[in-house]
Amino acid sequence: MKPYSQFTKEELIAEKDFLIKKYKEYQDLKLTLNMARGKPGADQLELSMPMMKLLQTAEECIDANGVDTRNYGELLGIKEARKLFGDVMGIKPEETIVVGSSSLTFMWDTMVRAMLLGVRGSEKPWSKYDKVKFICPVPGYDRHFTICETLGIEMIPVELTEWGPDMDAIRELVKDESVKGIWCVPKYTNPLGGCYSDEAVKALASMETAAKDFRIFWDNAYCVHYVYKDVPLLNMLEECKKAGNPDRVFMFGSTSKITFPGAGVGFFGASEENVEFIKNQITASAISWDKINMLRHVRFFKDVNGIHEIMAKHAEILRPKFDAVLNTLDEEIGPRGAGRWVKPEGGYFVTFIAEKGCAKRINLLCKEAGLSMTGAGATHPYHKDPDDAYLRIAPSFPEPSELKKAMDVFCIAVRLATVEKILDN
Amino acid sequence: MKPYSQFTKEELIAEKDFLIKKYKEYQDLKLTLNMARGKPGADQLELSMPMMKLLQTAEECIDANGVDTRNYGELLGIKEARKLFGDVMGIKPEETIVVGSSSLTFMWDTMVRAMLLGVRGSEKPWSKYDKVKFICPVPGYDRHFTICETLGIEMIPVELTEWGPDMDAIRELVKDESVKGIWCVPKYTNPLGGCYSDEAVKALASMETAAKDFRIFWDNAYCVHYVYKDVPLLNMLEECKKAGNPDRVFMFGSTSKITFPGAGVGFFGASEENVEFIKNQITASAISWDKINMLRHVRFFKDVNGIHEIMAKHAEILRPKFDAVLNTLDEEIGPRGAGRWVKPEGGYFVTFIAEKGCAKRINLLCKEAGLSMTGAGATHPYHKDPDDAYLRIAPSFPEPSELKKAMDVFCIAVRLATVEKILDN
Repeated sequence: MKPYSQFTKEELIAEKDFLIKKYKEYQDLKLTLNMARGKPGADQLELSMPMMKLLQTAEECIDANGVDTRNYGELLGIKEARKLFGDVMGIKPEETIVVGSSSLTFMWDTMVRAMLLGVRGSEKPWSKYDKVKFICPVPGYDRHFTICETLGIEMIPVELTEWGPDMDAIRELVKDESVKGIWCVPKYTNPLGGCYSDEAVKALASMETAAKDFRIFWDNAYCVHYVYKDVPLLNMLEECKKAGNPDRVFMFGSTSKITFPGAGVGFFGASEENVEFIKNQITASAISWDKINMLRHVRFFKDVNGIHEIMAKHAEILRPKFDAVLNTLDEEIGPRGAGRWVKPEGGYFVTFIAEKGCAKRINLLCKEAGLSMTGAGATHPYHKDPDDAYLRIAPSFPEPSELKKAMDVFCIAVRLATVEKILDN
Repeated sequence: MKPYSQFTKEELIAEKDFLIKKYKEYQDLKLTLNMARGKPGADQLELSMPMMKLLQTAEECIDANGVDTRNYGELLGIKEARKLFGDVMGIKPEETIVVGSSSLTFMWDTMVRAMLLGVRGSEKPWSKYDKVKFICPVPGYDRHFTICETLGIEMIPVELTEWGPDMDAIRELVKDESVKGIWCVPKYTNPLGGCYSDEAVKALASMETAAKDFRIFWDNAYCVHYVYKDVPLLNMLEECKKAGNPDRVFMFGSTSKITFPGAGVGFFGASEENVEFIKNQITASAISWDKINMLRHVRFFKDVNGIHEIMAKHAEILRPKFDAVLNTLDEEIGPRGAGRWVKPEGGYFVTFIAEKGCAKRINLLCKEAGLSMTGAGATHPYHKDPDDAYLRIAPSFPEPSELKKAMDVFCIAVRLATVEKILDN
């Protein structure tokens, strides 16, 4: 097998004919396959079901500090939960807020409060500026971008590599006072699959920013979600403190992909001063979040080791699925030079970087053969991928046999789109 | 016994001496009593504990429409829950959103979205106006006022009577285009304890407002929370539709005082067009709320009758507590003409309206005798009760024996403050 770039025109035409035939065979199967959504499979959900048997009596609903989790109170979360999820983030309970059932919602809330009220150290609410800009490493998470777009925050894409974003570009951008922050998914990045290097973390923590109230939205969604290997990540709050910028980072996480998506608990980490500041703001918006569910989680995990134990079981379930995706790409696409990808050590996604101008076409071919993928462009602000190259593969939800079929369709689509593109040029 | 107003000066001085002696006796008891918070007692929480035994297997977590409540999806809530809580509000499932665990949080969210994005029919986001004003019937709920104050929305107090707010004043106020809405707790009003009459509901639904995007924030927190009598309340969404203003009302409710405060489910009701509009907005802030807890509630209640059955049990528990408060006021305060109150048929509060200028003094006297009350002024925007007369009594949480003691202290404080006031004048 040789790369398409070394094919003669005749070879390409023959390959195209072959691929069209193969593609039609798949179309005839009338498949309904889905690699669009980063949701856990049913076997993963099963891992947390023992939790549902906990907390059945009044006594069991009282936490270690005597708080009745069934009643109002404890705006920042019960102490045990703040300890547990603080441990997950590597920070103190006093630096931790345990919130509702979604970290995304708390990210939205945090941005909204910044817009309407400002963050600690703001001269004025961000919405009072003519323009607010956020740096968005790409490929990135579409829901981060939707938050900015909805709120009218201008997004500036910056290239993300396997080891972190383009720091030279970022250092230049943050000289602009209207650049108020950056979105980061530092570990098993969504969707590229890399991890921020120590250098990247330190650079973000220590760089000089024109905006005194610059914030890193550190969405550590996959902090304990290894599949192959637990990649070490520096503690961003620690690094910000060391660099003299303790208030710079807002850390987010949740148990959505540890226990139950949308029915777990979200958590937030920041300096104690930020936590105190935010506490005063959120007093207007909440009396307390669901403490029963917090305590249910605490009792189930016992401590941070309990979380790691569950995550090892998730990894066992996810590994064959990631294998299926990566092995198929290695076999079918690699030797043909029809795209590239980072092998993720964890997380929920593989990003396929197609030849320029092929992503939308691949997406359409997949769709018309019954395979749903995340839309091309979703990895970029305003859905604009200038190279039309990025596609997100989400292997977690389908059964392995379905996944194999889906990847076969995907690879045929990639090959066909690539050959078409070369022939067109 | 005769009213203090008919006492001679000598009689007043004698009464004062007697009351100071009594008051000191209470102080010597070093009491720790609390009538500050409208939270359910432990026996009320016990009513919903059977719910905690539900949903223990994967099969049990699948809803009637085949949705796995343990995974992402169903942004507006599972259909069964939308039906159940729509029934509670007397509206269609399509007009209902079932949200997180707190209606207060959704009120905040709703106001924030109005400020940053606008509501259906807005020419621009509310925050883009020089001034946004809200009408606040007083006495009212302090947390509504906190939302407005935090967001810089100017609050205009309007007198609330047992049967609704002063409609003449409101009709005048809504001629101002910057008046964008009104807060209402229509049934067993927090904290006055009255209920909006049919006339009040119809008037609010049909009045002409200068702002085309005027909204009634209809916090029907106590919609099924009778204690003595279920007082009928017109369906505000229905009335708004009849009046040709279907988008005018945003209805809010929750199970915080049906099942578990902060760990139940919140719900929202509005026209289908509003719901669709809001769905598009909240797509930016959430993937889905805790559907497991929604289904747990649905299975526990089965239907709206299940909710009424639970509420009958709550009423049985609360009635002796309200009796204790009301009977003590009837015996100790009524004949002395030292204040007035509405006898609430349901809800969580009794509002005591002291003689002018007495509320803060009563509060202080209570505090210094070990009885915590909601702070004087909390019933008014900016904590400014111009008459210094309103005090909120929350009888639900203390044990009946404690409550009796608390009311004894309270009545001595009221009598002493009143006598002092008359002597001062």
